[in-house]
Amino acid sequence: MIKNISLLGAGSMGTAISMLLAEKVHDVLMWTPFKEEADMINTCREQKDKLPGIKLHKNVRCTVDLEEAVCFSDILILAVPSQNIRETSKKIAPFIIGNKTLVSFSKGLENDSGYRISEIIRQEIAGADIVAMSGPCHAEELARGLPTLYVAASENKRSAELIQDIFMCQRFRVYITPDVVGVELGGAAKNVIALCAGISDGLGMGDNTKAALMTRGIAEISRLGKAMGAQLQTFAGLAGIGDLIVTCTSMHSRNRRAGILIGQGMTPEEAVKEVKMVVEGFYTAKPMKLLSQKYNIEMPISAEADEVLFNGKDPKKALLDLMTRDKKLEPEHDICTDKW
Amino acid sequence: MIKNISLLGAGSMGTAISMLLAEKVHDVLMWTPFKEEADMINTCREQKDKLPGIKLHKNVRCTVDLEEAVCFSDILILAVPSQNIRETSKKIAPFIIGNKTLVSFSKGLENDSGYRISEIIRQEIAGADIVAMSGPCHAEELARGLPTLYVAASENKRSAELIQDIFMCQRFRVYITPDVVGVELGGAAKNVIALCAGISDGLGMGDNTKAALMTRGIAEISRLGKAMGAQLQTFAGLAGIGDLIVTCTSMHSRNRRAGILIGQGMTPEEAVKEVKMVVEGFYTAKPMKLLSQKYNIEMPISAEADEVLFNGKDPKKALLDLMTRDKKLEPEHDICTDKW
Repeated sequence: MIKNISLLGAGSMGTAISMLLAEKVHDVLMWTPFKEEADMINTCREQKDKLPGIKLHKNVRCTVDLEEAVCFSDILILAVPSQNIRETSKKIAPFIIGNKTLVSFSKGLENDSGYRISEIIRQEIAGADIVAMSGPCHAEELARGLPTLYVAASENKRSAELIQDIFMCQRFRVYITPDVVGVELGGAAKNVIALCAGISDGLGMGDNTKAALMTRGIAEISRLGKAMGAQLQTFAGLAGIGDLIVTCTSMHSRNRRAGILIGQGMTPEEAVKEVKMVVEGFYTAKPMKLLSQKYNIEMPISAEADEVLFNGKDPKKALLDLMTRDKKLEPEHDICTDKW
Repeated sequence: MIKNISLLGAGSMGTAISMLLAEKVHDVLMWTPFKEEADMINTCREQKDKLPGIKLHKNVRCTVDLEEAVCFSDILILAVPSQNIRETSKKIAPFIIGNKTLVSFSKGLENDSGYRISEIIRQEIAGADIVAMSGPCHAEELARGLPTLYVAASENKRSAELIQDIFMCQRFRVYITPDVVGVELGGAAKNVIALCAGISDGLGMGDNTKAALMTRGIAEISRLGKAMGAQLQTFAGLAGIGDLIVTCTSMHSRNRRAGILIGQGMTPEEAVKEVKMVVEGFYTAKPMKLLSQKYNIEMPISAEADEVLFNGKDPKKALLDLMTRDKKLEPEHDICTDKW
């Protein structure tokens, strides 16, 4: 039975995960590069900046010593921002000795390359045993103990099952899958669609338009995913449409808030500045475009998002162009056209 | 080119559809059994009870003469409540002469039998050419001209294409599919899940729990649909998850409102009474149970809904029982377990 867990990242998600594991009687050693943050967690027993009002469990401790954190357990959880994954992986590589399982809660694609999280980790830590975690989750709600469902994806079935066992409890239910590509792509690509859903709201459109954007958004992500080797049904699941629903319908979502401002007439740069925190959809649009070009997949919503975000296209015109595309079939995959 | 369109039903959906068609320069003859409703539409040019504030198009007229309405066109749209489909089909059967295409906008299953809309129509009108329409849509928003996406399903490809041509415009985009079973099942089954999403909200759960319920809800509907001969991908589309999203996230939804009241402690009977209008999810739970038994498909969320609605089970206990089920894989279909 595993007792100790290492956890890199002391933001809202990392802190919420630490509580979940600590309640299951694990000793959790968190790591942050910021001494003040570590001190706050150890002394105040609260992540006051990112999860205010939530008392941490006595089994949680925080350090700024990366080697200490990594060596604390054979289970190493990564809950750092996706754009820090390469740097973090580089730093921890020397300490990865023996059979460590790396569990990534980060969602995103590398901006310049389009690489997925597990690809980046393996480029820096050859042969790493990785489990990618994703699903519909606001860290605030997870920390408040509200029931949450997640998917654990790994090429290694025993690793997926191990992580399922470690995490699963009455308030956190974990499904397992071998489809790492689908789970990682879903968690990243949804940010662009959530930004578009926000733009639709900002333009004064209603629930019909937004639900249609979300549904056709996941359809184009599925199309790309299939070309990348993912399984279509993954995008119909928790790491696909489930995560997209949470991101598109909540005011917690920075992507949605930025989109609303753009729909209301702000330039994308102004909107991103106004929201202050990282607007993942803004940065994910570029690697999504790279992937759609690499795999030669038509992604009309993501393409219009790119035009609005980086080429000054009027969002109203983008919506009209989406509405007046050619006539299509749906679903486009696995369709029994032999019935016709 | 088709000029005239017959439209049975002058409720909010029928009225919204009439405007869409009238704008495309069709003459629309609506039918209602209620003389006062017909008079209101013809005289006030407004459906004051169900779509207040929206002026009707001059090309729309309303009659109480069913034969006149049915004989007005070879395109006959049915926008009556799903529980009136059998009675309406019986009444119009004598007037269905020649090549009429019946276009159903009704969503639901017959309460006592579990029959789908097109099955009921064919039982009453042998050999009817039917197109089933479904998708994420509040009638109010459609009437206000907000962009909406829909699916037209028919065993007859030419009929699906004809209806796509008739309806498609800048504000209403229509996809076609041969999967009538999937499209009809999605539109009915979502009501039960929407009721559950409302219960979750009423219990004070958050976005994580609701998104998970919706995702796992569509997973169990897909499982049933596959057994019934539908295509899995239909449930990942507009008539599946798209429609579920609109129904679960909007306060327009009567299912959601009834669910919230149940989650807050009302009995299901009290909640249905309080909402006043028809709560489809309450009535759809029974035929869904019939179908899950007939096809021997495990539907844990629908089963818990049945327990809460009809056997007095505490919703909190139902949620706990869902959270503590056995460990599972996701997706369960088409999974490449050969990777493991």
